[in-house]
Amino acid sequence: MKNDSLEGRRHSCAHLLAAAVRSLWPNAKNAIGPAIEEGFYQDCDLDDVKIGEEDLPRIEEKMREILATWGPFQVKEVTAEQARKDFAWNPYKLELIDQFAGEGKMITENDPGNFLDLCRGGHSENPQEEMKYFKLLSVAGAYWRGDEKNKMLTRIYGTCFPTQEELDAHLTLREEAKKRDHRKLGTELELFTIIDEVGPGLPLFYPRGAMLRRTVENFIIEQQEKRGYVPIWIPHITKGRLYEMSGHLQKYDAMYPPMNLKDEAQYYLKPMNCPHFMMLYKTLPHSYRELPMRWTCTTTNYRYEKSGELSGLTRVRSLTQDDCHVFARPEQIEQEINLMLDMVDETYRTFGFKDFWVRISTHDPENKEKYIGDPEIWKQSEAALSRLIESRGWEHEVGVGEAAFYGPKLDFMAKDVIGRQWQLSTIQLDMNLPERFELEYADVDGTKKRPVVIHRAILGSTERFLGILIEHYGGAFPFWLAPVQIRLATVSEAFVEYAKKISAELMEAGIRVELDVSDEKVGKKIRNSAMMKIPWTIVIGQKEVEGGAMKVNVFGQEEDVMIEQSELVVHARDASKRPLL
Amino acid sequence: MKNDSLEGRRHSCAHLLAAAVRSLWPNAKNAIGPAIEEGFYQDCDLDDVKIGEEDLPRIEEKMREILATWGPFQVKEVTAEQARKDFAWNPYKLELIDQFAGEGKMITENDPGNFLDLCRGGHSENPQEEMKYFKLLSVAGAYWRGDEKNKMLTRIYGTCFPTQEELDAHLTLREEAKKRDHRKLGTELELFTIIDEVGPGLPLFYPRGAMLRRTVENFIIEQQEKRGYVPIWIPHITKGRLYEMSGHLQKYDAMYPPMNLKDEAQYYLKPMNCPHFMMLYKTLPHSYRELPMRWTCTTTNYRYEKSGELSGLTRVRSLTQDDCHVFARPEQIEQEINLMLDMVDETYRTFGFKDFWVRISTHDPENKEKYIGDPEIWKQSEAALSRLIESRGWEHEVGVGEAAFYGPKLDFMAKDVIGRQWQLSTIQLDMNLPERFELEYADVDGTKKRPVVIHRAILGSTERFLGILIEHYGGAFPFWLAPVQIRLATVSEAFVEYAKKISAELMEAGIRVELDVSDEKVGKKIRNSAMMKIPWTIVIGQKEVEGGAMKVNVFGQEEDVMIEQSELVVHARDASKRPLL
Repeated sequence: MKNDSLEGRRHSCAHLLAAAVRSLWPNAKNAIGPAIEEGFYQDCDLDDVKIGEEDLPRIEEKMREILATWGPFQVKEVTAEQARKDFAWNPYKLELIDQFAGEGKMITENDPGNFLDLCRGGHSENPQEEMKYFKLLSVAGAYWRGDEKNKMLTRIYGTCFPTQEELDAHLTLREEAKKRDHRKLGTELELFTIIDEVGPGLPLFYPRGAMLRRTVENFIIEQQEKRGYVPIWIPHITKGRLYEMSGHLQKYDAMYPPMNLKDEAQYYLKPMNCPHFMMLYKTLPHSYRELPMRWTCTTTNYRYEKSGELSGLTRVRSLTQDDCHVFARPEQIEQEINLMLDMVDETYRTFGFKDFWVRISTHDPENKEKYIGDPEIWKQSEAALSRLIESRGWEHEVGVGEAAFYGPKLDFMAKDVIGRQWQLSTIQLDMNLPERFELEYADVDGTKKRPVVIHRAILGSTERFLGILIEHYGGAFPFWLAPVQIRLATVSEAFVEYAKKISAELMEAGIRVELDVSDEKVGKKIRNSAMMKIPWTIVIGQKEVEGGAMKVNVFGQEEDVMIEQSELVVHARDASKRPLL
Repeated sequence: MKNDSLEGRRHSCAHLLAAAVRSLWPNAKNAIGPAIEEGFYQDCDLDDVKIGEEDLPRIEEKMREILATWGPFQVKEVTAEQARKDFAWNPYKLELIDQFAGEGKMITENDPGNFLDLCRGGHSENPQEEMKYFKLLSVAGAYWRGDEKNKMLTRIYGTCFPTQEELDAHLTLREEAKKRDHRKLGTELELFTIIDEVGPGLPLFYPRGAMLRRTVENFIIEQQEKRGYVPIWIPHITKGRLYEMSGHLQKYDAMYPPMNLKDEAQYYLKPMNCPHFMMLYKTLPHSYRELPMRWTCTTTNYRYEKSGELSGLTRVRSLTQDDCHVFARPEQIEQEINLMLDMVDETYRTFGFKDFWVRISTHDPENKEKYIGDPEIWKQSEAALSRLIESRGWEHEVGVGEAAFYGPKLDFMAKDVIGRQWQLSTIQLDMNLPERFELEYADVDGTKKRPVVIHRAILGSTERFLGILIEHYGGAFPFWLAPVQIRLATVSEAFVEYAKKISAELMEAGIRVELDVSDEKVGKKIRNSAMMKIPWTIVIGQKEVEGGAMKVNVFGQEEDVMIEQSELVVHARDASKRPLL
């Protein structure tokens, strides 16, 4: 770690934060305080003292006060005995000292100025300059060592940057991200909810969210089928026997526990689809003429993630995959991957993910014995992956030695409109499952051959993709995606019939339309519609009944748009077309 | 039981069959032999003797021989002691005698002519005439008393009718039903399969079957949404807590056993959707203006049916419901039911179920305390149900006292093309779940009121409906439903490119098309296509490449149809339109 690195600054700030907390609450006991991806945190045992975000300014003030007195961090090695003496007042440090001593690790302390802390080092050498641009962000609870059986400590988050500009940019992005938080928008826009009695990580979707799901899933289905993919359907459960065959039962640890059917078998909820696909392939004889077979299924898997790791739609226990397995002859790999890349390209352009890059994971040539499958297939397919990505001019990175033991892989990392990076699609070659399931096809000469399997998901999972999409669009979905595309707001009871007539015409044309026939004033109705980020709001009153042009309030636009009533359906249909960016 | 009833004749035939088996295999021990819905069977312990359908003619012959010697069945009461003496050679009868004696039941025997059997009575008084028109049908294995731990006996099935005409009609229907058996067609047409390693009752669908599923499910979704229904999405599992609230955990016995997540909860696979719907409603406040809310979800439920009761798609463990719950104000019940009847009507007419009747299940006026909910709602809704069905002129039957304790119900029984009756749609009022889940809406005056819930499934379940549809159409689906609508068969390699061009045009127009580019002769290709019951088969050769009209081989039609190439897409699109019969 470079001392003036982001990490060094942030780690140092955590010490400063601990010092400030101890100064304000002398009974406080600081536990750990690491640098993290977007800043740092410090855990403290404050006993009965409860603090909240309102306390952050005075903690910051105290930090600045203390920082003014600090010099370079000087790390020195001490004996465990000495360290135990120095931290006799702090049970958390004592526990760490015992642990380090037990592991035979060096024990080091530092003291940049009247604040002795236990630490492995990697700090700022010029605190006055390097730690200047920090900011405390939030307060949360966290169990000591992340274990629910331990005491709940107070965790304070903060961040630090080399310049005020960088800090400001980060805080602006943070504010923007907060506004776009899909968990917040999910509730406000009535997209989805999580219900205690059903369980964490198991979102239920309201009609708007269900419609959004379907639009996105149907888009992928359409993308697939116009390229010759065909659907299959599989149940969500299976006997354990299937996972013994695939090896998942022995190795995969996110499975839900079994349902024990006495006299019969143990049944499992499926955490992935591959074994079902393999078995279905295996039930029929196949000829080389049939390959490639491109089988898809949009189906939900269940994985038992720890409840503390769950988050809205992006980390769930029920994940619906736009799964696909292509069964191919080895010489078809390149053509099939290329077809998948076409799909990735069209998908990202449709959803406006303009900025993305690809990680190509290849085998480690120093460790050839780690991998199964024909070395010739490895060589050719890795070359094909690189060639295909390069020929499209897509930014990429080769991760040598990062391939799974059963085949090379492509991962796609895309940036959303506010620059955050998400992993989306995956394309993975598999020479293992065809072997384990003894899949075959009859080749031209009648001999039995093993097909190669290519796994592929474009969205990753519907839930996670929706979470990302909600944040990407900040909930203001483009017309084609919006769960409700048009809201008709009546001026009064007298215009309800007319509004229903227009609504019926729009529905007939496949437009998703909604009526607001409440008693609210028209201005309020327009604001309500904007709150729900509905693309078009049209007021229905006397003028509209008399015919002629309608005023369309377009979400996010200052000026209303005038549309002739006779052309409303045509315009709406036009707006429904998917853009290709 | 009337002695000349179907049941009496058939029961008597079972005795005759036992007599014939004992005559042919003197060591055989006859167990039970009841009349069943379509005939009768007789179980016998034949020890090591294996018999098959090839043995049925000589057993029948022996039966006729014996029948010629028989007089009226004369039933006489005997003591257990006497019976034990008479059947000392037959352990099955001895077990029955012990059981009857233990239960204090009368023990009776009969002997129509040199064949003494144990029996409760109900036989033909004129065997020569009444038992004449019988036929043995099949042989199977069956455990004594249906218990896998007991010995496997030989079961011979047969049937008997009052006249030769009736017997012949039945045998013809049986042959027809055999040809249409969806389990057989499911394999032949590559629609679905059941895989041991996955489990019984859990069908997996090949691409053709998956496409058929989707076409049927999308039809229903379209029917719903044009009537203002909106989708929701729910996970397939839930904490047990939800089923405690709904009462299912205590009362519903087809649930899969729980998945025990230590430290957290017991999770259950959902066997029905109502509780999820109720909870989702409950998460938001609702106003009278929003009602009726018509929420739907096409989602799979899992019910643990005994493996012996499973059959193809019609009795499964994974059943996908076109489920819908309407939350309504009591005064909206009639309008909502009427909307559902529109949907039933359009659905049955689309799939050609012209002949159906409705069972209206109402409360028992003698037992009013059995029912929950407002008596006024009961009265009005039952009257509305009858009025609505009558006004449509639909055949119906009122089952007084057959309503569930929580509301009246409509069941729809439809006949398929060969006259077999199937239960399809259900519409059920529910005044219980809204109470248990304390559902509310704010009424006009601001007071909190309970909505009524109406459950509704038009198809019942996708799987069962598909099973019925396959038999109804005998696998020869109309063009709009057919998983593959057109097969293009090339004359030789030289025409593959041209076939692909035509295929691409058809696919672009949303037609489901398939190529046969194998090396088979054209005649064989046409026959293969007919074997798969593909609606249109078009040969692509030199003539077609040169342009002009194409010869379309239409499944089930003698004469080919000529279609101009330039009009092929238009004609195919036209054929794709759903008929309304």
